[in-house]
Amino acid sequence: MHSEGLLIVISAPSGAGKTTLCHDLTQRFPALQESISYTTRQPRPGEVDGVDYHFVSEVVFRQMVAEHAFIEWAEVHGNLYGTAMATIDEARRNGVDMLLDIDCQGAKSLKQRGVQGLFVFVLPPSLAELRRRLESRSSDAREVIERRIARATEEIREARWYDYIVVNDRLDEAQNLLAAIVTAARATTERMLGRVGKMFDI
Amino acid sequence: MHSEGLLIVISAPSGAGKTTLCHDLTQRFPALQESISYTTRQPRPGEVDGVDYHFVSEVVFRQMVAEHAFIEWAEVHGNLYGTAMATIDEARRNGVDMLLDIDCQGAKSLKQRGVQGLFVFVLPPSLAELRRRLESRSSDAREVIERRIARATEEIREARWYDYIVVNDRLDEAQNLLAAIVTAARATTERMLGRVGKMFDI
Repeated sequence: MHSEGLLIVISAPSGAGKTTLCHDLTQRFPALQESISYTTRQPRPGEVDGVDYHFVSEVVFRQMVAEHAFIEWAEVHGNLYGTAMATIDEARRNGVDMLLDIDCQGAKSLKQRGVQGLFVFVLPPSLAELRRRLESRSSDAREVIERRIARATEEIREARWYDYIVVNDRLDEAQNLLAAIVTAARATTERMLGRVGKMFDI
Repeated sequence: MHSEGLLIVISAPSGAGKTTLCHDLTQRFPALQESISYTTRQPRPGEVDGVDYHFVSEVVFRQMVAEHAFIEWAEVHGNLYGTAMATIDEARRNGVDMLLDIDCQGAKSLKQRGVQGLFVFVLPPSLAELRRRLESRSSDAREVIERRIARATEEIREARWYDYIVVNDRLDEAQNLLAAIVTAARATTERMLGRVGKMFDI
């Protein structure tokens, strides 16, 4: 029986450990696909179009922006990067569970478009610990770090409208919790009825 | 920081394996308390009032029924048994997570009273398997078994308004899923804000 793909949206302030958590999640759930972004930058050796990125020209990218095709897009070092709404729609239709590592603005845009998903916000154990992590891993100037912390503090306020909050204090516990959230999301009645509703005449 | 106790409501048709699953859940989550019922039957040797049951007279029980103090109550072999709303309210207020093994009627009554909880329905892998389980474990007459199956089929239709559906096919998988559902429920934003909201000014 076919059921819609689950969309897992994960946001976090820089330094909360989101990248490690997302990586662990895809290890535990091999069927979980990460969203493939569009970019205007040149493919590096070994990168495959449609696998690593959708490589497009700037003209095409700008056209997509004009058509509101992106949930979020940004310019980084002169190249454009974007996450297309179509990528998410397609995964859902094809029954593919998708992991979307996206900032609060992008997540909010999804929510505002009425996209159904599991919205998870990852928090550091405390602001003091976030500061410690940002300071220890960066050789950036004090001012840059302060700006990051100010931004993180702002982003954290967005946590209130997410579905779940994972505090990344002990990594293994945070990993287990995130896995439990994904496991549980697959057993909601809405999703299960698609799988077993007919069999039981529910 | 104090947060409200979580109420986990589990229902299932007879033969779905609910008792085994509930037992496993209380083993995994030692802080999870099972609801203590009221009863008019005499305590058996070793049974402690307020631990095994709340032992009350029939007069008191009937008075509680008249006052709508019970979510559900039933007469079994001449004795009265009931689950009091106050038991659930008290656990919630005291931050105690409670497991409530209750039939669909009782669960519906909770839902109708607007009680917040995690409503989980346990399904057998199929109606054929349910029949096999009921037949193999019972020496009851064919008619009795048929009645149970008819009742189970009816109850299963109620699954549609529960939050989660756990299909108890492989026991260990069902146990893991149920544990994941409980773990995830403790990380909803609503609950987490009570724990970390102030710290992060969310």
